[in-house]
Amino acid sequence: MQQDVATAMKTSLEQSVIQALRSVLGDGSCVLHEPRFQGNEQAYVQECITSTFVSSVGRYVDRFEQELAAFTGARRAVAVVNGTAALQVALQLAGVQAGDEVIVPTLTFVATANAVHYLGATPHFVDSAEDTLGMDPAALKDWLKHVAEPTAAGSRNRHTGCPIRAIVPMHTFGHPCDLEGLLTIAHDYRLALVEDAAESLGSYYQGQHTGAFGELGALSFNGNKVITTGGGGAILTNDERLADHAKHLTTTAKQPHRWDYVHDEIGYNFRMPNLNAALGCAQFEQLPSFLASKRRLAERYAEAFRGVESVRLMREPKDCRSNYWLQTLLLDEAVADQRDAVLTATNDAGLMTRPAWGLLHQLPPYQQCPRAPLSVAESLARRLINIPSSAGLA
Amino acid sequence: MQQDVATAMKTSLEQSVIQALRSVLGDGSCVLHEPRFQGNEQAYVQECITSTFVSSVGRYVDRFEQELAAFTGARRAVAVVNGTAALQVALQLAGVQAGDEVIVPTLTFVATANAVHYLGATPHFVDSAEDTLGMDPAALKDWLKHVAEPTAAGSRNRHTGCPIRAIVPMHTFGHPCDLEGLLTIAHDYRLALVEDAAESLGSYYQGQHTGAFGELGALSFNGNKVITTGGGGAILTNDERLADHAKHLTTTAKQPHRWDYVHDEIGYNFRMPNLNAALGCAQFEQLPSFLASKRRLAERYAEAFRGVESVRLMREPKDCRSNYWLQTLLLDEAVADQRDAVLTATNDAGLMTRPAWGLLHQLPPYQQCPRAPLSVAESLARRLINIPSSAGLA
Repeated sequence: MQQDVATAMKTSLEQSVIQALRSVLGDGSCVLHEPRFQGNEQAYVQECITSTFVSSVGRYVDRFEQELAAFTGARRAVAVVNGTAALQVALQLAGVQAGDEVIVPTLTFVATANAVHYLGATPHFVDSAEDTLGMDPAALKDWLKHVAEPTAAGSRNRHTGCPIRAIVPMHTFGHPCDLEGLLTIAHDYRLALVEDAAESLGSYYQGQHTGAFGELGALSFNGNKVITTGGGGAILTNDERLADHAKHLTTTAKQPHRWDYVHDEIGYNFRMPNLNAALGCAQFEQLPSFLASKRRLAERYAEAFRGVESVRLMREPKDCRSNYWLQTLLLDEAVADQRDAVLTATNDAGLMTRPAWGLLHQLPPYQQCPRAPLSVAESLARRLINIPSSAGLA
Repeated sequence: MQQDVATAMKTSLEQSVIQALRSVLGDGSCVLHEPRFQGNEQAYVQECITSTFVSSVGRYVDRFEQELAAFTGARRAVAVVNGTAALQVALQLAGVQAGDEVIVPTLTFVATANAVHYLGATPHFVDSAEDTLGMDPAALKDWLKHVAEPTAAGSRNRHTGCPIRAIVPMHTFGHPCDLEGLLTIAHDYRLALVEDAAESLGSYYQGQHTGAFGELGALSFNGNKVITTGGGGAILTNDERLADHAKHLTTTAKQPHRWDYVHDEIGYNFRMPNLNAALGCAQFEQLPSFLASKRRLAERYAEAFRGVESVRLMREPKDCRSNYWLQTLLLDEAVADQRDAVLTATNDAGLMTRPAWGLLHQLPPYQQCPRAPLSVAESLARRLINIPSSAGLA
């Protein structure tokens, strides 16, 4: 009898979620996030091909960089091949070297830790805050008290003896994390702060666009992001010298010369092709309307889920304006064991949903890395469901 | 008086080169290499945008990979974001690890050594052969006799104690190097052979397409290559297991699952966007005509430079069919000191030319790496001039 009641409740949660989704999305199927090309995409890309400048140089790259800087308020933007590459180079320019340690959230896409690893550094995983889904300053502070030893040159891990060089907060699904709290700690421990802003184009913290609060930040324009360049990313910074260096490093570190090929350091083949920037310029023109649509969708979802017990829609944190890149449901802990049933039922119904990424400290390649207590992230990962979020749905 | 004669001779060489170039190229200016978009580029890219699949998945990527495999005769091709990324992953899959040593030519684009460096390995530089411009088997053999100690597991550097893991021949400007000689040595010393075939799409050695003679190879589709995807590259291999692994590694090593995000190793965000593959598919259809045009251009240049003293056009090596990607003049050593005057005069005349890349062992980041005697490469670098080479010039 108790078993029957439990089963009936589970069915009820799944059906309630589907009903709420349908009340916003209507009938038919719906992907999690798809790009929208209803502006000048075809025109700009055609013009780009006609110009023959589809590759490493071209006016769309310059324009895209200028528009990104103007929109985000960062002094400079450097367009690159994807968000992972942007983060790798941003970390390198923030001083991260082989043998260093870098603190990242465990609740993030794997690229955050991969970028650290590519530089020969080791990620530490810290917990997230329930109200932002991002790196929790209190958890960070506790962890640093435990592991970090301040030195004249910065902080050192008292157990390994290696420098702890940087923290990499990530703005989860477009919700800004507590940058003020994190910046204070970064300052106290003399750590670089590099924002993984891959998901937060159009998100603001205390009125300022995310991505350039620390030394550098990284954006992504992957196909599933607010705007896309097919594949692409950008480095943001307010430091002209770092921006020039970022451009140099991401274009094979070739010294300017009429014909000589001399590379004065080990650079990367990371520049964004002009073809992709052409798509990006057209997407950029529509960014305000995409953001408005996503905000409307959040309102409609919030309304639709108001009556659904044990489920709430993630709303923008205090003093923040989120881009609502991926809309997010949070189940109450009491019904967390029904998450997979909800995922199955919604996907079976053609309404694409997905859980959080596998927490990084649980992934095979990162299981041996240092980690702080991660109970909030573990709880969020059990309870979190992303629901259809494309611009144009509302 | 002698000074005057010398000056007269120099003027004469520059003017002779310009005259020979003009006899082929006509009046007006001419860039070194530009892409040609006169096929289905606009149609495929438009269709790609309309489909909304511009990013990490899409049918153009699959088609491009299948066409590359069919054309090159390699069992599999894996499309990636550029040639450098292709080479990095190819080397990793060939077993190159941090602390290893890898032998590369000094006469190559910097990416050949960078790919080694990204894996934490150290490049050794060896000499090139005059007849191929590529890695010289005799020089490689002499160098290995000097540094390599065979062990049960492969070869070890007798001075550093580190494994020597692989050799990376590169097919300079599209001219295949002596693969048979190199494969024999690689076999004897149990070294992996990974071809840097970035420049040799459409080039054949003993009737077989370059790029899959060893464990793996890397192609490039940068804007200046025989065909372009804006930015792009591909890994070639005849080993299905390595190809599957290459696909996995270059797509963030995510395990297939309906919704879970689990990455079982540290992968890369290296997949080619579908937008770029759409361009590539259209370019691919024209590859035979591009290759035919480049071959005609080589014939016309050869004829035009037949009468120019102290200068010869680089022709395809014995038993090879070159794609003639970049047409190359070689000055006699006696007039090598006039190279810069020729470069200046031709570029001033609007005929774009350039010398070889700065030799890698002379670049600041690689000056401390081990190197064999490099007298042939040093001579080639003094004497070599690339001249306008675009498809469609003949």
